[in-house]
Amino acid sequence: MEKYVDLLKNIQNSFNNLSKGQRLIAEFIINNYDKAAFMTAASLGETVNVSESTVVRFANTLGYNGYRELQKELQELVKNKLTTVQRLTMVNKYSSKENALKAVMEKDIENIGKTIHEMEYGAFQEAIDLILNAENVYILGLRSSSFLSGYLGFYLNFLIKRVTVIASGPNDVFEQLLKADSQDVIIGISYPRYSKRTLEALEFCKDEGCKIISITDSLISPASKYSDIALIAGSDMLSFVDSLVAPMSLINALIVSIAMERKDDIKSSFEDLESIWNKFNVYNINDKENNN
Amino acid sequence: MEKYVDLLKNIQNSFNNLSKGQRLIAEFIINNYDKAAFMTAASLGETVNVSESTVVRFANTLGYNGYRELQKELQELVKNKLTTVQRLTMVNKYSSKENALKAVMEKDIENIGKTIHEMEYGAFQEAIDLILNAENVYILGLRSSSFLSGYLGFYLNFLIKRVTVIASGPNDVFEQLLKADSQDVIIGISYPRYSKRTLEALEFCKDEGCKIISITDSLISPASKYSDIALIAGSDMLSFVDSLVAPMSLINALIVSIAMERKDDIKSSFEDLESIWNKFNVYNINDKENNN
Amino acid sequence: MEKYVDLLKNIQNSFNNLSKGQRLIAEFIINNYDKAAFMTAASLGETVNVSESTVVRFANTLGYNGYRELQKELQELVKNKLTTVQRLTMVNKYSSKENALKAVMEKDIENIGKTIHEMEYGAFQEAIDLILNAENVYILGLRSSSFLSGYLGFYLNFLIKRVTVIASGPNDVFEQLLKADSQDVIIGISYPRYSKRTLEALEFCKDEGCKIISITDSLISPASKYSDIALIAGSDMLSFVDSLVAPMSLINALIVSIAMERKDDIKSSFEDLESIWNKFNVYNINDKENNN
Amino acid sequence: MEKYVDLLKNIQNSFNNLSKGQRLIAEFIINNYDKAAFMTAASLGETVNVSESTVVRFANTLGYNGYRELQKELQELVKNKLTTVQRLTMVNKYSSKENALKAVMEKDIENIGKTIHEMEYGAFQEAIDLILNAENVYILGLRSSSFLSGYLGFYLNFLIKRVTVIASGPNDVFEQLLKADSQDVIIGISYPRYSKRTLEALEFCKDEGCKIISITDSLISPASKYSDIALIAGSDMLSFVDSLVAPMSLINALIVSIAMERKDDIKSSFEDLESIWNKFNVYNINDKENNN
Repeated sequence: MEKYVDLLKNIQNSFNNLSKGQRLIAEFIINNYDKAAFMTAASLGETVNVSESTVVRFANTLGYNGYRELQKELQELVKNKLTTVQRLTMVNKYSSKENALKAVMEKDIENIGKTIHEMEYGAFQEAIDLILNAENVYILGLRSSSFLSGYLGFYLNFLIKRVTVIASGPNDVFEQLLKADSQDVIIGISYPRYSKRTLEALEFCKDEGCKIISITDSLISPASKYSDIALIAGSDMLSFVDSLVAPMSLINALIVSIAMERKDDIKSSFEDLESIWNKFNVYNINDKENNN
Repeated sequence: MEKYVDLLKNIQNSFNNLSKGQRLIAEFIINNYDKAAFMTAASLGETVNVSESTVVRFANTLGYNGYRELQKELQELVKNKLTTVQRLTMVNKYSSKENALKAVMEKDIENIGKTIHEMEYGAFQEAIDLILNAENVYILGLRSSSFLSGYLGFYLNFLIKRVTVIASGPNDVFEQLLKADSQDVIIGISYPRYSKRTLEALEFCKDEGCKIISITDSLISPASKYSDIALIAGSDMLSFVDSLVAPMSLINALIVSIAMERKDDIKSSFEDLESIWNKFNVYNINDKENNN
Repeated sequence: MEKYVDLLKNIQNSFNNLSKGQRLIAEFIINNYDKAAFMTAASLGETVNVSESTVVRFANTLGYNGYRELQKELQELVKNKLTTVQRLTMVNKYSSKENALKAVMEKDIENIGKTIHEMEYGAFQEAIDLILNAENVYILGLRSSSFLSGYLGFYLNFLIKRVTVIASGPNDVFEQLLKADSQDVIIGISYPRYSKRTLEALEFCKDEGCKIISITDSLISPASKYSDIALIAGSDMLSFVDSLVAPMSLINALIVSIAMERKDDIKSSFEDLESIWNKFNVYNINDKENNN
Repeated sequence: MEKYVDLLKNIQNSFNNLSKGQRLIAEFIINNYDKAAFMTAASLGETVNVSESTVVRFANTLGYNGYRELQKELQELVKNKLTTVQRLTMVNKYSSKENALKAVMEKDIENIGKTIHEMEYGAFQEAIDLILNAENVYILGLRSSSFLSGYLGFYLNFLIKRVTVIASGPNDVFEQLLKADSQDVIIGISYPRYSKRTLEALEFCKDEGCKIISITDSLISPASKYSDIALIAGSDMLSFVDSLVAPMSLINALIVSIAMERKDDIKSSFEDLESIWNKFNVYNINDKENNN
């Protein structure tokens, strides 16, 4: 899929060099590529109120011989957004369990590698600063992303004063976010198949003036458009599973980096906790041995 | 830490070549290395009812010049089990956020690589067979491991008839496992600092005759000793975080492999779900576009 | 509101004495009273394909002087379904906290009394039999009803082999109910403002052939229509809170009654648990004193 | 059990009239009645460093003919703290399901009545003031009490800025309470069999200087001793279930009373929510009808 992300990144990167009319096209495609993929140059032009020839010139500016060529790549992009059933049929591509294990885990390695390579460190540092300076930090992830948001919350709870993990529960996500305001940061974790409720909640928070950091799979994911900062870690389609290994690795890096900033302040908290854990016997510190 | 795991693996691998008295020592060390590390040859011999010279010969058999040398390695192993506060002091080893991110994520890559390399595929296949043939599958993970058990349960729910994720909640873990019996499989996920309650629950299930698969960080983890099958994926100490990236990658491989076996049976379930999701509008299928 | 429930019960009770055309009207009103309340006799007749005079005769059969009189009562019924904001404005009806406490708690007493008085014991016994004979028992309650379903599940877990509480979580309610079939019982707990997802899930389970027991506030609640057995316990509108005290009391009675049937079988389970609780120190059994 | 609660209340009420030595006895009995019940007058005296005759005079002051008579009542009190197995044997006291339902629900009515009658309205008002003025409100309940704490949190979330429900989860209760300080209020809900962890957490919060409101079953419950304010609502032993109906009714009264104070401020929040709920289709507002 990287090729197609490149297509859309390519559009974003060219943005400053585009004419005003071409920018309208660019914007429409980035936000509606599923739809654009199946529009003629004429109807695309009509939709954004530019001429058909502007659409063609737009394709040329991006390096295509014509609109048809651009459109074909958009269609490939769309096809890659498969339904779960379609993806399930890809399961039997491995000849053995051993090969499946290797293929799946090597893909995860590749994915983490790509995440390191493509990370924008300025954005990463900026995300850390936002989190450290927020009044409240809300972490939102639903469906399979809820395990990442829970994991991030589990550790941020030790490092940051006001952390709330937003999850499906008796109170819906809007009720849980009702008091979020412009002093607050929302970390939205959103992976294919993008949960609709997560996107609605990010839209709501955006309207409330919150700062939004997304952890998502590409700059063209629907979560990115609500984000002040998008931290990108790929997720790979493994049959019907979307591997969340690369984002989990990114989250580890985020936690360790925040701990670097809070080191002195939190050491005493941990000393307190060690003594509480010890007092109330939470962990297994050789207790079998001690009972001998 | 690999070196020390090697020490204990080394002991396990040599097991068949040991005398009866030496086997008693081996067993004691594997299960009580924290304690053994600080015993003299004499007191270790006394504890397991063998002579001091048997202890010395045991060290020689493993390739050490004497008991002192073996003991020193055991002490190194123990020292590596640090408290959270001690580990927190390791945070400032990175000179920048960019370096921290790279170091953390590259360590995850290394860890997945090691997991692939050291996986015993026979055990992996056997685990899959146990899961497919169980009456009930219980997945148990507490503390940070609860996010892995939730993630595994999230996907197994689509593939297996009776899957229950056991987590901290109003009913304690024993109450949730009260009906588990010899027809059932428990998947126990246990990483440092090993949750005491997880180990107690595995002990309880073992006594009930359940089959136990552990996902854990080494053959000498306390979870391994209750396990019929131990699937090993390393977790790396990143400051105060134990990275769970390699086990998550292993869990992906497990899910995909089980899906390979259940492919035909579950396709119709997914078709049902697609239509329910569609009917009740769970996912974001281009709805912005459709509303234009 | 009882008066209006009586109106709809009245319609249900008269059902057998109605003509075929009148039954169409009755059915429409029971399922769509919000809409019917604002239809003329003519348009109501047209909607269900009967003459206007049939509508008038229907009102007469129920004891009204004309359709207008019936319609007025329907409108009162609708008005009682207030929005949360509307209900919030009712908050200041109490002159003091003491009076508020008394009024709220006395209303709860009244509600439990009414529940006892109006309970159909045949249905209650039948519900118990269904639960005891089910392959799997699923308990479904969302929003504030989730605390009742959790409470019921907490105790049924000790009494019944396969109990699953369905709640908002990473897997949506449909995924959690995907394997439910005709051997299974769903206990649906549904109170105003009725959660849409609960009703959809009951509809789904009904289609799958499950037996459905609802715990709800009236025979005309939207949950009742999917139910094989409806156990009625009123919920009272206390400003913006719907008191769930009477249904919790009914759930207590349900648990105690099921325990009466399972007494001999479960005693040993509890003895096991007592010894586990004791072994792992779950409850506070005078431990301060014992440590003196 | 009321009789025995009266015994301990009686001791509390007499406190001001007791001599210094008698006060030591009173204190010991209130906090350790399980133990005191089985001590002779001599050993009780020795334990608190008073003479045996002071113990006898203490019994006389309370209206008993001697220490033996007081001790007998203490023993009755202890006996009423039965194990679950013992209580389960009480199940077959009802001759039919109908009688069981009536007995259980009428007991709940009686319990609510008693709660109204014995409520100290000053304490109730004070609890409301504490909650309204707290920086953070934490609500803590484990085991079956977790459904009450969830229910209270569900509604307080609409009324109060910073509300956190503390429950069993990946982070233990201490980690969740780590940042609680003297600006904060803890509402601890604790019912027999009192969860040890709840009591430990209240002890921890007390040490941190938090204000503590308990909702519990008597002034001599172990939760009361950590509390600034104890709101008492009885829980009745129904076979192995402890009915939480009266405390739920009390919680309703608490929510309505807080809403009375916050009426103007929150109306706009609810209007926002109504429009969000409407926009994102959370509730079932006649949607069947609208689709006709």
